[in-house]
Amino acid sequence: MDGSRPVWGYNPPPVKFDLATVYVSDAQYNRNIFFDTSPQAVRLYLLYNHWFMQTLVYAFIIVNLALALFEDPAVVPLPIWATSTIEIICLSAFSVRMVHYAKVIPKDKFWKDPKNICIIVVLSFIDLTIYGALKSTGYFAIRWSRVLRPLLLVNVTEGRQLRRAFRSIRNALPQISYVFLLFMFSVLVFSLVALKLFGKRGLLTIDGSPYFTDYLDIVFDLYVLVTTANSPDVMMPAYNYSVFFTIFFILYIIINTYTFMSFFLAVVYSNYKKHLKEEVRQLVKARRFKMCRAFSLLHEARGEGGEPVVTQTKWNHLVKLVKPNINIAHRELLWSVLDDQNKGHIGKFAFVQLADLLSIQVITVKSQPHPIQICFPSMYNSPVSRFIRYVVHQRMFVYVYDLIILVNAVFIGLDEENPVVSNAEWGFLALYMLEIILKLYATEPRAFFARHHFWNWFDTIIIVSALFGTIINSALKHSGGYTSRQILDIIFILRVLRLIRLVDSIKRFRAIINILIKIGPTILTFGQLIVVVYYIFAMVGMELFKGKVQFFEPNSTSPDQEYCGNPLLKGTTFAKLNYCKNNFNNVVSSFIVLLELTVVNQCGFTAVTHISARIFFVLFHIVVVIIIINIFVAFILEAFLVEYTIDKSDLQTSLEKKIEELELNVQQYVPFKPNRIELNRSIEGLLLLYFSGSRTVDGLLQRMFETDIRPEDFVEEEEPENINFSNPVFDSV
Amino acid sequence: MDGSRPVWGYNPPPVKFDLATVYVSDAQYNRNIFFDTSPQAVRLYLLYNHWFMQTLVYAFIIVNLALALFEDPAVVPLPIWATSTIEIICLSAFSVRMVHYAKVIPKDKFWKDPKNICIIVVLSFIDLTIYGALKSTGYFAIRWSRVLRPLLLVNVTEGRQLRRAFRSIRNALPQISYVFLLFMFSVLVFSLVALKLFGKRGLLTIDGSPYFTDYLDIVFDLYVLVTTANSPDVMMPAYNYSVFFTIFFILYIIINTYTFMSFFLAVVYSNYKKHLKEEVRQLVKARRFKMCRAFSLLHEARGEGGEPVVTQTKWNHLVKLVKPNINIAHRELLWSVLDDQNKGHIGKFAFVQLADLLSIQVITVKSQPHPIQICFPSMYNSPVSRFIRYVVHQRMFVYVYDLIILVNAVFIGLDEENPVVSNAEWGFLALYMLEIILKLYATEPRAFFARHHFWNWFDTIIIVSALFGTIINSALKHSGGYTSRQILDIIFILRVLRLIRLVDSIKRFRAIINILIKIGPTILTFGQLIVVVYYIFAMVGMELFKGKVQFFEPNSTSPDQEYCGNPLLKGTTFAKLNYCKNNFNNVVSSFIVLLELTVVNQCGFTAVTHISARIFFVLFHIVVVIIIINIFVAFILEAFLVEYTIDKSDLQTSLEKKIEELELNVQQYVPFKPNRIELNRSIEGLLLLYFSGSRTVDGLLQRMFETDIRPEDFVEEEEPENINFSNPVFDSV
Repeated sequence: MDGSRPVWGYNPPPVKFDLATVYVSDAQYNRNIFFDTSPQAVRLYLLYNHWFMQTLVYAFIIVNLALALFEDPAVVPLPIWATSTIEIICLSAFSVRMVHYAKVIPKDKFWKDPKNICIIVVLSFIDLTIYGALKSTGYFAIRWSRVLRPLLLVNVTEGRQLRRAFRSIRNALPQISYVFLLFMFSVLVFSLVALKLFGKRGLLTIDGSPYFTDYLDIVFDLYVLVTTANSPDVMMPAYNYSVFFTIFFILYIIINTYTFMSFFLAVVYSNYKKHLKEEVRQLVKARRFKMCRAFSLLHEARGEGGEPVVTQTKWNHLVKLVKPNINIAHRELLWSVLDDQNKGHIGKFAFVQLADLLSIQVITVKSQPHPIQICFPSMYNSPVSRFIRYVVHQRMFVYVYDLIILVNAVFIGLDEENPVVSNAEWGFLALYMLEIILKLYATEPRAFFARHHFWNWFDTIIIVSALFGTIINSALKHSGGYTSRQILDIIFILRVLRLIRLVDSIKRFRAIINILIKIGPTILTFGQLIVVVYYIFAMVGMELFKGKVQFFEPNSTSPDQEYCGNPLLKGTTFAKLNYCKNNFNNVVSSFIVLLELTVVNQCGFTAVTHISARIFFVLFHIVVVIIIINIFVAFILEAFLVEYTIDKSDLQTSLEKKIEELELNVQQYVPFKPNRIELNRSIEGLLLLYFSGSRTVDGLLQRMFETDIRPEDFVEEEEPENINFSNPVFDSV
Repeated sequence: MDGSRPVWGYNPPPVKFDLATVYVSDAQYNRNIFFDTSPQAVRLYLLYNHWFMQTLVYAFIIVNLALALFEDPAVVPLPIWATSTIEIICLSAFSVRMVHYAKVIPKDKFWKDPKNICIIVVLSFIDLTIYGALKSTGYFAIRWSRVLRPLLLVNVTEGRQLRRAFRSIRNALPQISYVFLLFMFSVLVFSLVALKLFGKRGLLTIDGSPYFTDYLDIVFDLYVLVTTANSPDVMMPAYNYSVFFTIFFILYIIINTYTFMSFFLAVVYSNYKKHLKEEVRQLVKARRFKMCRAFSLLHEARGEGGEPVVTQTKWNHLVKLVKPNINIAHRELLWSVLDDQNKGHIGKFAFVQLADLLSIQVITVKSQPHPIQICFPSMYNSPVSRFIRYVVHQRMFVYVYDLIILVNAVFIGLDEENPVVSNAEWGFLALYMLEIILKLYATEPRAFFARHHFWNWFDTIIIVSALFGTIINSALKHSGGYTSRQILDIIFILRVLRLIRLVDSIKRFRAIINILIKIGPTILTFGQLIVVVYYIFAMVGMELFKGKVQFFEPNSTSPDQEYCGNPLLKGTTFAKLNYCKNNFNNVVSSFIVLLELTVVNQCGFTAVTHISARIFFVLFHIVVVIIIINIFVAFILEAFLVEYTIDKSDLQTSLEKKIEELELNVQQYVPFKPNRIELNRSIEGLLLLYFSGSRTVDGLLQRMFETDIRPEDFVEEEEPENINFSNPVFDSV
């Protein structure tokens, strides 16, 4: 060390480390909160971000959302005082959380972020009071604040992904609306042509009503044709009259159903891509800014020319604080990546990379001798034992078990009441158990059950549960001849799930499955998005349509059963096809109706309440199908393009490359074994590092646009212009 | 001119120019035929490529395809001898074309390209002979060669675009098939779960048949659910039994209907993009190679260092041969772009760009004084006349007419039997005529009706036709009280078409419409693709299902009418919804059924012939919906991304930039006027150049991937490795 001062004994004040830790973990998890830097505020901030507090907030949100199950119209009715009490508890919890937030944040910044939550809480309280007062005096009242509930999911501090998704939608809206207006113009013009062509010809629909005589009806019918729900019914009367009229419908389908719908996807896709890129760029900027802050807390003048550096001691201390359960080997690996010239200290540029390094999942597995080898070394090393271990590690072993699974699949398909089939099941269970035992014999158990060996866990859980289920079931059967349908259902599903293992044996399938698993977390974000939108539409739908359509149990004898309890539905296809359970009578059936509307817009319920139902239907189609589903497709498209080309392009981050270059004395990648159960044939005493790409959504996003993020975006000291990511302003086209 | 030799009097042998002309126009139109370079072959080659010959070939193909209308099962039955004679004439024409091709091509290259056509022609002759022989002896016979007919469209020399589309599909097939297999695996596993969960519960469908008891039926039902055709019917029995069973369907829809279908789009899109880029790269390479050939025919040593150049005289001669109707101003513009240092000769690099320059559409409009100005100068320049011309050119004029159109739209929607409405129509017609006359007065007529003024033509044709139609109609009405429904239909459509002009007034809509117009030609290529696939499926479908379902005229009294003449359809939804006309009884209704299957897979006809119909249906869905529609969406997506970002990115070709840089003494762009009818307020005596991007599909493709085509791809002399573009070999993922 050149010109070193006695820094090794230097004991920094702990508060500095506390603050630095907060900056680093904020950078790692992409949190963007301007907290107060006083020691007390930092401690409160740590508590605020504690996983338990976050879980608690989500638990209260879920309870609050779940109230819809118990409120009128309810699945399980509860008295108003009970639901109101629960809601008040939830709202109080959110208020407490806001007070906590206010303590953490400087006073002048407080209103920037959580104002929406405050508004929601206050409005809910007002609504509750009014509702309670009106109900107690016997008036009619609506719980209108229920539509606000899902917005809590968006507005809590932890709802970053969801907020980003909503922002991306908001940014795409202007362009979508231009295409939508043109599309509506086209629908209106086509409707006018239809009115003029078919209106005077006296055609009848299959229901016997006049065909295409009312302009608004035509517009609605042709709009529905875009969703393909009423094809070919809407065309049949004209087609039956003359084959030439199909030209009108063919043109309509080509222009509106295909071209415009593709246009919507194209607009959503291009906007989504553009805005997301900008946001990710800002995210990276903010992350680097926070790392610079942490650096400025810990640095000291050293190195050539007295430039600020951070020593290894301080760095070790920091990493221990940020990630308390970090392995020493892992920590040293990280250090050696950063300090690649082995100087004992790192500069700012290297220090900033810590956040990225920490977000790369590295699983360390110590290779140890097998417990049986320790207890009975002579037996474990005998020729027979060696042969068994050799066989288990062969490809043939995998193929034999693939074959067994295939045979099993046939047996599953057969009638299980046949005694041969039910006895064969015991044989299959024995074979699978044998496989697991053999593998546990050949592999060190802790390595076998390492956290990243998904399929080993999957196999063991499936087989052991199936074994228990089958034993319980047969015990029940033998004791009293009684068979539980539920237990059988579970056993059957467990059996079928085994078959999934076949997919993992084929390399190309595994590649596709890996993409699916990678984009899984983002699909969850879209799941939340869908829940928010569905919940709002369900609340509105329930107020508008509750009780309009009734479902009668199949063995009911009520005469109303034929038309779902609503005379307006007499003789309609809706009643004929027994769609009565598709109603808005409670929140669960509302969600199912909305799902059906998403898939294909089965809109029989428009027959009941005329105009409002149609507007509701069209609005839902615009929001969910045209916007949200297209964003979903856009994300899958982009994620797929990134993942599918990853083998060829150099998308591996520079950090991954560095680790590879270093050729540390570790086996970095657990190669994908051809074996059905992943085995660690690890060389004794070696440290195994399982190295996976970053699993978080942010990580995937960053990788998506990595090639486009310029290295100049390395912010030095100045604050990023817009750390809370309000919408960047783009030039419209 | 430095050190010039007396080349101006030099008269080159004409054959050289002929050959060079062929090379240049081959380069311009991306033709890739290895013709013999003997003078006689070149002359034959010119004839081969003559537009008349090409039109003739397409006419014969269309006649050959249209034979399906007259052959059994026929729309208009013709005797076998008549259709056979026509088919023999068509096949002879193709044979003659092949003989012509053989004369043009060197013997050893002949079999490379047209072997497919020869095979099709020979097979068709064999089939015709067998069919004729069998029919005349009273046996059963099938015209199996009819499925080969549409392949002629793909295999003729002119079907380049179509061949490229097919190649792009073929290249994407391996990757699509992996995803498809995984998707089918998922469907099979879900079906097994469904069998186990629902099979034993004794549920019934709405038809009263057992629900989910047969494995193959379940697989088919769940496959159809992916197409969303049987949602929510397939779910209702399970949902009515217990709400928890919907979880199964929700999972299925999320995984298979949404995720896998998006995956298909993603795979098709990424492959399409990748392969197309490679093909366009090769196309550009081949084009440059041909231009080099032409250069080597015309060059002479001149310039500094005696490097080969082409003089302006020769170049002028060549351009006149390639494009006989080229304007002198246009030609001189092209020359000045190439010879930017004004040397009087150009080198190879500049010469090669001629093909690209020629494919850019440049419309020259000579600005001339108005004919009225010439005849009655004092009147035309009087203050009143000036004022009228001033008013016509104002934005207000456009707005007033937009308003008139809006009012007109309301009147169109009203009942036209009302005398006020029908009289108002005369008023509107007068107003529109006045608009056209005023604009013709304010603008020079030849400029007004210039080829690129699409909307002027559109307006005039629509209005004048509507005027004639209305006059004829009212004459008929007054003479005998007779009204022709057909004439009225045409008049109504013409009236509605006027409304489209509103779109052109709004800038953002015009931008979207322009994209639509740009990708129009490619949509036509996809149209051909669809025709080929539909024709094949229609032929097979007709052989399999003809006569199974019958349509009865609405006023028929036959008892079979209720079940479409097939007892198997008794009581099915297919018959109830009166879908009887959706059958395979002739080629027109087959096409319409296939279109319906494309939109939403209404597959009622599977009830008639069990297994073959299902296989047919699934195959059609895989080919058309999963592959072709996705390629269509992929193309729209890519075209949209290119066009929508064109304002900001530098996608304008280097050539366009050059023309801009030169700032020639011409007004190059006719700016988009706000006026509803485009006006050329041209400065007197100035040459107007209307400068549009290349309109051809190849041009659009080239622009799509232009940034990725490296300038190194400038092939010098060596022949491109694969001029006929068989498939480039790509590494599979």
